[in-house]
Amino acid sequence: MTTSPVPTYQHILLTVEDRIAIATMNRPARRNALSLEHMEELIDAFRTLGRRGDIGVIILRGAGPAFCAGHDLNEMTGRSPEFYRHIFDTCTILMETIQAIPQPVIAQIHGIATAAGCQLAATCDLVVAADDARFATPGVKIGLFCSTPMVALSRAVPAKLALEMLLTGDPISASEAHQFGLVNRVVPVADLETTTLALAQKIASASSAVIGIGKQAFYRQINMPQHQAYGYAKEVMSFNATFADAQEGICAFLEKRPPQWSDR
Amino acid sequence: MTTSPVPTYQHILLTVEDRIAIATMNRPARRNALSLEHMEELIDAFRTLGRRGDIGVIILRGAGPAFCAGHDLNEMTGRSPEFYRHIFDTCTILMETIQAIPQPVIAQIHGIATAAGCQLAATCDLVVAADDARFATPGVKIGLFCSTPMVALSRAVPAKLALEMLLTGDPISASEAHQFGLVNRVVPVADLETTTLALAQKIASASSAVIGIGKQAFYRQINMPQHQAYGYAKEVMSFNATFADAQEGICAFLEKRPPQWSDR
Amino acid sequence: MTTSPVPTYQHILLTVEDRIAIATMNRPARRNALSLEHMEELIDAFRTLGRRGDIGVIILRGAGPAFCAGHDLNEMTGRSPEFYRHIFDTCTILMETIQAIPQPVIAQIHGIATAAGCQLAATCDLVVAADDARFATPGVKIGLFCSTPMVALSRAVPAKLALEMLLTGDPISASEAHQFGLVNRVVPVADLETTTLALAQKIASASSAVIGIGKQAFYRQINMPQHQAYGYAKEVMSFNATFADAQEGICAFLEKRPPQWSDR
Repeated sequence: MTTSPVPTYQHILLTVEDRIAIATMNRPARRNALSLEHMEELIDAFRTLGRRGDIGVIILRGAGPAFCAGHDLNEMTGRSPEFYRHIFDTCTILMETIQAIPQPVIAQIHGIATAAGCQLAATCDLVVAADDARFATPGVKIGLFCSTPMVALSRAVPAKLALEMLLTGDPISASEAHQFGLVNRVVPVADLETTTLALAQKIASASSAVIGIGKQAFYRQINMPQHQAYGYAKEVMSFNATFADAQEGICAFLEKRPPQWSDR
Repeated sequence: MTTSPVPTYQHILLTVEDRIAIATMNRPARRNALSLEHMEELIDAFRTLGRRGDIGVIILRGAGPAFCAGHDLNEMTGRSPEFYRHIFDTCTILMETIQAIPQPVIAQIHGIATAAGCQLAATCDLVVAADDARFATPGVKIGLFCSTPMVALSRAVPAKLALEMLLTGDPISASEAHQFGLVNRVVPVADLETTTLALAQKIASASSAVIGIGKQAFYRQINMPQHQAYGYAKEVMSFNATFADAQEGICAFLEKRPPQWSDR
Repeated sequence: MTTSPVPTYQHILLTVEDRIAIATMNRPARRNALSLEHMEELIDAFRTLGRRGDIGVIILRGAGPAFCAGHDLNEMTGRSPEFYRHIFDTCTILMETIQAIPQPVIAQIHGIATAAGCQLAATCDLVVAADDARFATPGVKIGLFCSTPMVALSRAVPAKLALEMLLTGDPISASEAHQFGLVNRVVPVADLETTTLALAQKIASASSAVIGIGKQAFYRQINMPQHQAYGYAKEVMSFNATFADAQEGICAFLEKRPPQWSDR
């Protein structure tokens, strides 16, 4: 087991062990609400972890009774238009950072994931949910439509389900979230941590360089028309084929032996 | 209960009660086929309702044994190319109008929703279906591929299901339609009207200004690459945060009291 | 029954009977791996069949224990960057050819469909799978991320499922593939051939001109923003309405008799 020094934050607990970083949002009394300061810390944490070649996967989870209840509403009243704009700018940077860094980010979700918390779930590459988890975009109930969460949600689930969640504000269960593609796996609460860690370990056992080029290519190509996506993806794959890890991996497969990645 | 005067149409019954409009396609002997005249009336009805601030939600349904059997085939033989083009121009305007108006439109579907009738279902923001409902794009069977219904269908369900429906013309059941995202809820025929009305009432209880800005943003952002969508959505949400209804809604939530919307 | 002369290939068995072509990948000892030569033959076969007006549907299947295991790894080690680029160029041309020809292509899948074999499945218009079929994009395990298969896979299934398959390399079952839209039908192995053939016969009974204009329009419109897609699709449908087969089909329907297509 290897542990590594990590930056410390006011609102996030961060550990790194055996190539897996675990970021725990730690404002349990506020259900890990995304205050401006909390979002700025998360951006810094993801950027810092993203630059570290010794980290293969990141798990994002929440301390206390919930994953994340969205923006901190105490910051959303009586402020200037410029302040609101800064909040949603920062939130967008956070979401785009999660998808931009090379390491896959797995959301480990229990309790509620609502509003920007639901957006976090929809934004992470993979989601493991406890069977008690619920997902909602309830902005309509407080007069603030979940327009930025909508961007992530409507790219993860069918359009009519996204519209129903956005227009009614009602939550869906973990099992519905799985049925419609928002969640990869649903497990009993007692198994949430071990299932998430096992998934992280599996991905962390691959070559980081290969995982990184693939994850980043996913989000580029998904936003292109298919012909353009192929033009891009075939360059990525041709380049990847020249990596030492690809040559080692293919030879190991043909020789029926385990591969030895260059970053290990 | 408040009822309001509404325009009268030859092929549509229209009622408005308690912020909810119900538009009933009323050509039951023709299974509510979308003749040119019928489509022109629907466009006028949606545009008229769309301008009314006292209406929060619109329900679209069909009188008689079916929701809608698509275009009126009596109009589709022996005409000029210009006439066919006018039909599909008008149909496209109808579909785009439904998504352009600020109020959510809920399709209440029983019996068949075929061809342009299936397109209507795929176009409405939400769909409640009776368990006897069936959805099909059967154009291939009459030599006229459902190319314009395809635009709506392929944005509501997975690509391979859309292709199967389009290439075979075979119907899917309400339960399959729900499983793959075309339908939000499936209920026994006897519960169709009350379930749809309850869904409409829930949405109509929100602030119309907030619902309207959110619905319109949905269709704009879904057609953009994600980074562009975020650039757009964060402006929408920052603007929304300055609405009186947002400030009232957030304060009401923090003060644990029901909000009082400005349009009520 | 009508059989027709067809070109012969080293790696493909090709038969044409009653308007249905069956292309069988025939490298069973290599699990039908897509060597450069095999891909070049498949491109030639699809192009040749695509020009033939007497063929309404094409079935693609694999001889031996599997549908297709992807690229031939014996060709992927120790070569020049230019060679790898040529491999992925050729693979992309194969996939784009399958979607560009007017006839629907049905993948008939048993055993494994992995890497570029999974891409083939995701690329074909329709997929019928035996209940023993498994689908995977396992490139990460050999250091070569499935970047080009990702383009097809991520347009067929929800984003998070695609990411899980790509990041873990783990297979999904036929039933999961059906649940999430990658597969149209799952049947017992014993019924695979007859189910696929019956689906092909149903589609082949329609007008080839109408199926062709519709299939090609599908892939054009799905890559456009919705408003542009409608602008395009309404021209396609207006044009289709002027076809002799459309006029015949609509008249036959109104006269309650079977249509007589012009290509029969």
